[in-house]
Amino acid sequence: MTFKPTDYLPYDFANRRHIGPSPAEMDEMLKVVGVESLDELIDQTIPASIRQKEPLDFGKPKSERELIWHMRQVASKNKVLTSLIGQGYYGTIVPPAIQRNILENPAWYTAYTPYQPEISQGRLEALLNFQTMVSDLTGLEIANASLLDEATACAEAMTMAQRVAKSKANAFFVDENCHPQNIAVIKTRARPLGIEVIVGAPEDLEPEKVFGAIFQYPGTYGHLRDFTAEMEALHAAKAIGVVATDLMALTLLKEPGAMGADIAVGSAQRFGVPVGYGGPHAAFMATREKYVRAMPGRIVGISVDSHGHRAYRLALQTREQHIRREKATSNVCTAQALLAVMASFYAVFHGPEGLKAIAQRIHRKTVRLARVLEAAGFEVEPREFFDTITVEVGLLQRGVLQAAVREGINLRRVGETKVGISLDEMTRPATIEAVWRAFGIILKDDHLTPEYRLPDALIRQSSYLDHKVFHMNRAETEMVRYMRRLADRDLALDRAMIPLGSCTMKLNSAAEMMPVSWREFSQIHPFVPKDQAEGYAEMIRDLSEKLCTITGYDGMSMQPNSGAQGEYAGLLTIEAYHRARGEGHRNICLIPMSAHGTNPASAQMAGMKVVPVKTAENGDIDVEDFRAKAEQHSDNLAACMITYPSTHGVFEETVKEICDITHQHGGQVYIDGANLNAMVGLARPGDLGGDVSHLNLHKTFAIPHGGGGPGMGPIGVKAHLIPYLPGHPVTGGKEGPVSAAPFGSASILPVSWAYILLMGGEGLTQASRVAILNANYIAARLEGAYDVLYRGKNGRVAHECIIDTRPFAESAGITVDDIAKRLMDCGFHAPTMSWPVAGTLMIEPTESETKAELDRFCEAMLVIREEIRAIEEGRMDPENNPLKNAPHTMEDLVREWNRPYSREQGCFPPGAFRVDKYWPPVNRVDNVWGDRHLVCTCPPMEAYSEAAE
Amino acid sequence: MTFKPTDYLPYDFANRRHIGPSPAEMDEMLKVVGVESLDELIDQTIPASIRQKEPLDFGKPKSERELIWHMRQVASKNKVLTSLIGQGYYGTIVPPAIQRNILENPAWYTAYTPYQPEISQGRLEALLNFQTMVSDLTGLEIANASLLDEATACAEAMTMAQRVAKSKANAFFVDENCHPQNIAVIKTRARPLGIEVIVGAPEDLEPEKVFGAIFQYPGTYGHLRDFTAEMEALHAAKAIGVVATDLMALTLLKEPGAMGADIAVGSAQRFGVPVGYGGPHAAFMATREKYVRAMPGRIVGISVDSHGHRAYRLALQTREQHIRREKATSNVCTAQALLAVMASFYAVFHGPEGLKAIAQRIHRKTVRLARVLEAAGFEVEPREFFDTITVEVGLLQRGVLQAAVREGINLRRVGETKVGISLDEMTRPATIEAVWRAFGIILKDDHLTPEYRLPDALIRQSSYLDHKVFHMNRAETEMVRYMRRLADRDLALDRAMIPLGSCTMKLNSAAEMMPVSWREFSQIHPFVPKDQAEGYAEMIRDLSEKLCTITGYDGMSMQPNSGAQGEYAGLLTIEAYHRARGEGHRNICLIPMSAHGTNPASAQMAGMKVVPVKTAENGDIDVEDFRAKAEQHSDNLAACMITYPSTHGVFEETVKEICDITHQHGGQVYIDGANLNAMVGLARPGDLGGDVSHLNLHKTFAIPHGGGGPGMGPIGVKAHLIPYLPGHPVTGGKEGPVSAAPFGSASILPVSWAYILLMGGEGLTQASRVAILNANYIAARLEGAYDVLYRGKNGRVAHECIIDTRPFAESAGITVDDIAKRLMDCGFHAPTMSWPVAGTLMIEPTESETKAELDRFCEAMLVIREEIRAIEEGRMDPENNPLKNAPHTMEDLVREWNRPYSREQGCFPPGAFRVDKYWPPVNRVDNVWGDRHLVCTCPPMEAYSEAAE
Repeated sequence: MTFKPTDYLPYDFANRRHIGPSPAEMDEMLKVVGVESLDELIDQTIPASIRQKEPLDFGKPKSERELIWHMRQVASKNKVLTSLIGQGYYGTIVPPAIQRNILENPAWYTAYTPYQPEISQGRLEALLNFQTMVSDLTGLEIANASLLDEATACAEAMTMAQRVAKSKANAFFVDENCHPQNIAVIKTRARPLGIEVIVGAPEDLEPEKVFGAIFQYPGTYGHLRDFTAEMEALHAAKAIGVVATDLMALTLLKEPGAMGADIAVGSAQRFGVPVGYGGPHAAFMATREKYVRAMPGRIVGISVDSHGHRAYRLALQTREQHIRREKATSNVCTAQALLAVMASFYAVFHGPEGLKAIAQRIHRKTVRLARVLEAAGFEVEPREFFDTITVEVGLLQRGVLQAAVREGINLRRVGETKVGISLDEMTRPATIEAVWRAFGIILKDDHLTPEYRLPDALIRQSSYLDHKVFHMNRAETEMVRYMRRLADRDLALDRAMIPLGSCTMKLNSAAEMMPVSWREFSQIHPFVPKDQAEGYAEMIRDLSEKLCTITGYDGMSMQPNSGAQGEYAGLLTIEAYHRARGEGHRNICLIPMSAHGTNPASAQMAGMKVVPVKTAENGDIDVEDFRAKAEQHSDNLAACMITYPSTHGVFEETVKEICDITHQHGGQVYIDGANLNAMVGLARPGDLGGDVSHLNLHKTFAIPHGGGGPGMGPIGVKAHLIPYLPGHPVTGGKEGPVSAAPFGSASILPVSWAYILLMGGEGLTQASRVAILNANYIAARLEGAYDVLYRGKNGRVAHECIIDTRPFAESAGITVDDIAKRLMDCGFHAPTMSWPVAGTLMIEPTESETKAELDRFCEAMLVIREEIRAIEEGRMDPENNPLKNAPHTMEDLVREWNRPYSREQGCFPPGAFRVDKYWPPVNRVDNVWGDRHLVCTCPPMEAYSEAAE
Repeated sequence: MTFKPTDYLPYDFANRRHIGPSPAEMDEMLKVVGVESLDELIDQTIPASIRQKEPLDFGKPKSERELIWHMRQVASKNKVLTSLIGQGYYGTIVPPAIQRNILENPAWYTAYTPYQPEISQGRLEALLNFQTMVSDLTGLEIANASLLDEATACAEAMTMAQRVAKSKANAFFVDENCHPQNIAVIKTRARPLGIEVIVGAPEDLEPEKVFGAIFQYPGTYGHLRDFTAEMEALHAAKAIGVVATDLMALTLLKEPGAMGADIAVGSAQRFGVPVGYGGPHAAFMATREKYVRAMPGRIVGISVDSHGHRAYRLALQTREQHIRREKATSNVCTAQALLAVMASFYAVFHGPEGLKAIAQRIHRKTVRLARVLEAAGFEVEPREFFDTITVEVGLLQRGVLQAAVREGINLRRVGETKVGISLDEMTRPATIEAVWRAFGIILKDDHLTPEYRLPDALIRQSSYLDHKVFHMNRAETEMVRYMRRLADRDLALDRAMIPLGSCTMKLNSAAEMMPVSWREFSQIHPFVPKDQAEGYAEMIRDLSEKLCTITGYDGMSMQPNSGAQGEYAGLLTIEAYHRARGEGHRNICLIPMSAHGTNPASAQMAGMKVVPVKTAENGDIDVEDFRAKAEQHSDNLAACMITYPSTHGVFEETVKEICDITHQHGGQVYIDGANLNAMVGLARPGDLGGDVSHLNLHKTFAIPHGGGGPGMGPIGVKAHLIPYLPGHPVTGGKEGPVSAAPFGSASILPVSWAYILLMGGEGLTQASRVAILNANYIAARLEGAYDVLYRGKNGRVAHECIIDTRPFAESAGITVDDIAKRLMDCGFHAPTMSWPVAGTLMIEPTESETKAELDRFCEAMLVIREEIRAIEEGRMDPENNPLKNAPHTMEDLVREWNRPYSREQGCFPPGAFRVDKYWPPVNRVDNVWGDRHLVCTCPPMEAYSEAAE
């Protein structure tokens, strides 16, 4: 037998596809790092005392093909019925060109949040379109670039109302016609903040008793009502009026702005984003211009670049948590960028005429449906409606609901004797007939256009979506090219490493993403009967179990749909635990000064007082200060919030001590999971002493960042906290919900589940190890050129490292911003800037980057250092140099070149691809100009030319 | 009721998504064209005498959502079993990253054939990888960039052998172990050419009697045999040896080159391209360097650009039909570029180690399967094999096959008493156990690695895929970026209009493409029992009926998988018809001189003699010459081949007369359907007098061009010809097959079917009308600047127009090439160059382009005219000008600029996008250099630097 079998494993996803460096490359890298083996490096990096005892074992990992097969089996356990449940979630038709070219296109879904505007102009334009769409439809001047979901948007509106209201009242009025999950999340949010929530009929509003009020329009049971009088009354009492509304209805109905509302919120889901068992979708918020600085969430604005050309960027960032910490407007950090982009393209695809036509079709069908039910003697409310009616069926409720299910249709259970029906874009005549049959009526739909049932006074009088982007030629050819042009302006993971510290921009593999598009996952309403979502249940159960095994916790809640939401939910859980034990007075939260800004912001939202803890010289938490503060607040200590490995990129040796101190003083330990990517399979927060942690599934577990969302931030807790996890009005639980849907953004969970199934325990562990190797490799290669700020006891960094660029400000007048922009010339997204330490760069390569890409990055960084040196040594002009002029654009190249360095040096520094060069579409963006001249919707064309002057 | 219902139709695919110009735009365009209405324009363009009587009516067109729903219903009628039938089609795992980023990515699938190399460097590189892969694995120096399918590749190998063999024999020997469809297609091809086909066992070969011989390796029943002795014997007789082979097997087995073979052919299907009920897949052909000029199909080669940089381009194009017409090496025009690209990426993904490991796994499983069958007493042959065995089951054949189907498995019926089994990459232990159960054996697979059953002497000794592209880091991150970089180098429909005359580069919509990826279409073996492919049957039946209605024919064959293949099949049908009527001597085919080069090439292949007919001054067929030639050859007239509207872009008034003359002299009329896009719903070739036509589904019916294939060229015939349509050994029929699979590239038929269902009869008709409007709009806008060569009686062009650029050669030294390259600077693919008239440009915008894009193109053309004028008037240097230096690259911009015009003028002529500028990755490519220094595989890196000097 001359045949030699190979031991090469072609379907080994972890080592073949996910982990960047090949074994041979790792050998070279270990040499550079100066260790014999990866084991040795890990031993040097992670303190032995915290290493996990048992290796992670999930059995044999699946190949991509086995995964897809398995996912299909599980998906098939979800039954796809037609859901007419409404309650904030509606059938919608995703235009195939949007599905393929946005949702399924890595150029869109692997992008990061557009904090670096020069390389994010494409999605910033799409998000500005979104804001314009929201602003136009709600009739309010300013909209943000999306929020997590409608219910949290309602809660955010409440806290915003409190911030801006001149009324000193401490209560918030909530229309009983709001969707139940909106009311529930408002209540959850209100309690720790000490806000009284008054739920009642609009008639019950007593304006002088409240700082604000929210009304749902159309109401959850279909009612349409003009809130102009309520708004006037609120304003008279110096209170704020909020309307939770529906963009589709607003294409026909009087807009909240015209009623005098101060804030409008809602969900853009039905603009082409599948229901997906609850999410992700883009919620929206719009407000008056005067309140813009109090508005939570990201806002895209227009500014100019260094050539005076129009450029988009995020506006008013000083409102946000990373600047204002516990004084921030909100802890909202993640948005729903990818979904907001989809919704905005849906509006571009259809334009105002198309949206109006769709809304009219929905309404006409609802009228036809209602008329026949009325004629058959059923009591239908309301008399006038947009798309939702409620039918009194008395004792027959159960029978009607079941008959409908047999017809393939889910209706809504309302009270004990009613049934709710909400029609949508997907409703066909056959659907209407099937509903009738569920009510015992056998009839053919006549397709005729009936009298409309919209109140005359509520017919919309104003135009909307007048900007030319909503009046483009809508041929698919043109639409696809527009999507491609925008995508090409942005730099995402499909072109280059995005070495963002704390953000873990790892591979989002095609196999992991595919099931997200399947109708068995995407077409399930969040409130379907349990037996229609058994596939989801199986997935969530198994994923939760595996995440518990990974983290060392006993229970998991999938409800929080962002990391910050997870922090907040975790702290609420702690708060409820203390309260249940009669220790509700415990309200002190110790947070190291180096913590992520969302930590203090979340603590504030959970009603806690933040007590900052010092950071020692070496970046570690100052244990003595921690101990002192814990002792000082021993009676009232609720919790501490720490991040592990630390935000300084170090595995601190003292973590268990910190946890012990906290527990000794009656507090609970919150371990922020942002850096879990360095630990999976190596150490478990639950073993360190953590009581609760959130996990960033969009960091550690391969959900793509989507250009700034979606995210998922489930929380793991120890057994004693399980009873206090978030509940939900539809699925039950003692505590209130933090999100609109019981399982947050459920339809992206397949990504994380797939990732774990493909990687297996050993693969996940190896990923953590290689993430650490990659970071240490970069630290080693940059040594001498840059100082690494923090290292562990053995001189190792964890999965990221902070390099100090502060000295260059003095030596050469070069800021961290200059370096970040210069990296764009090399074809890179900058590392995290000025966080957790101002004037530094935090680099996290992740395990997915190959040695070649790491080298390309290191070469770019080293050349930048040489350029700085040239300034330091007077060989280069301190003002007119490649760093100050970065990023360089095609525009620079085509113009006259009067710079003391060559075009070649300016545009093609080492690291930059030659033929495949990525060109930032604009030069350096002027942020100050933009904040001073705030424009947050698509301006008329003339405005652009003015701006350019 | 104040509410005004809108009549806007948001789901009108034809007018909203597919057709470019909006109604308002059309009004403006009609004014420019100088007519009152579109009706008037059509009346002026298409002679009343040929207009179709009844409007096209297919009922209500479907919305995209209805379409997807309908397609799902039909798809679900295909039953996805595990097919172990083999016979040239094998299960394969498409890496998800390739599926998403190549097959489902418009940047790849909407690209055109890479005739303009400067804007096609991405796919040219991928195709060069394909050639290298084929060349390496077969052990022959030169490979082409794919052929239509394995069976036609076998037939092409036969005719190529005849061309190059020094033997004067007239017979071709065919190994009886060849796949039946290979033998059948060889026979079909041989007969009209007068080649005798001798089928027999390899032992029966009498070398001196043949000019060549073909052997299958591994044989269709699994046998492995070393053909070294046969090759030597053939060479001694000055004959040519061909091996039909399997790339997967060659990763383990001695390569044909090492046996002395002159030509190797086969299919690359199992390298990551789904079986798809027969296609499309990339077939391959490799040969010795000395025979390269006789090889059919496209060959990618390496050359240099004007800066001396390496650049890819198609080599040796002078061999092809558009140059050599009936003397061409073959009529092959379309390749299978998209599938070849997929296969090449599969090899890049796995590398030689991975491919070898996959092949070994397949082999090990086959050994385990066979051992148990042998132990159970079954007679298994052969004793040594790669992946295929044949089992003697006597009278139990039917029972075993049926038992297997009950187990979810299709086996192959071999003779009356045997069963064939071919394992593949998808085979799992459970599959093996299920096969055993079909044989009555209940056993668990032991997973052990058995002794290998490959003959020692046939173990491969040489290495392969040594080039570094096959040794890239195979992390998905890296692979996806490589795919993106290549895609970004190319200009496809997702970025700009591709106004290629005769090629109809219309929208390929996302909705139309989606079903192609569904497993119910992609995972069906072409030889499954009929009851497993009822969805396919329904689709093919309905699509055929609709195409018959559109064309006015009575029957349709879906077998030809390219336009040229359709021509050939149509002429064979005519030939069989004459033969059946005892008029087999009829062998004259009248073809106008303006015909597409494939026409005469196909006629030659069908055994006909081409008699060219003159073209009159105005571009029309010279009717008198036609009549004279028909009379002259009256006794032997077999057919005429005409194109309608003509290749000159004109609806000739005389078409019916031409048809009548042909019929009067006993001939049949072949109407080339290349220009059918101007006629759908307006006129029908069958009504004009055509007896047979091929349709280019990849032109008129929205199948994307895939960067140079796939295509589909079904033929429609009048009733009297139906009995003579191509048959197939598996599905029956009197005549032989022209393609390997009964329905050609069946898995892309959903695209055309979807297109027709979405458009409806009225929409299809409107598409033709707007295609004519768009062409006339361009003709009107360019008037005065360029002469339109040919027009109809009323001064109108059809759906394309030819503009004359010949005068500029004399007036300014500017060639059509210069204009084509300059258009790249404006961000456009050039129109068709120098065809059908040398020195001209043929422009076909299609109905999918919007007015804005047409205007952008016209502006670019007008500015180019001004640039020419500047040369004519001596204002611009005749050698150093933007036209001669085109295309301009980033490289030009970064270098020193010593040109008498500005960077701005050079790189950003009107039409070019500013921020979204497309940059050709190379400067003008030197074709002559490349053909003189022929390199058609990835060269070692050093070679590149040499080439650059």
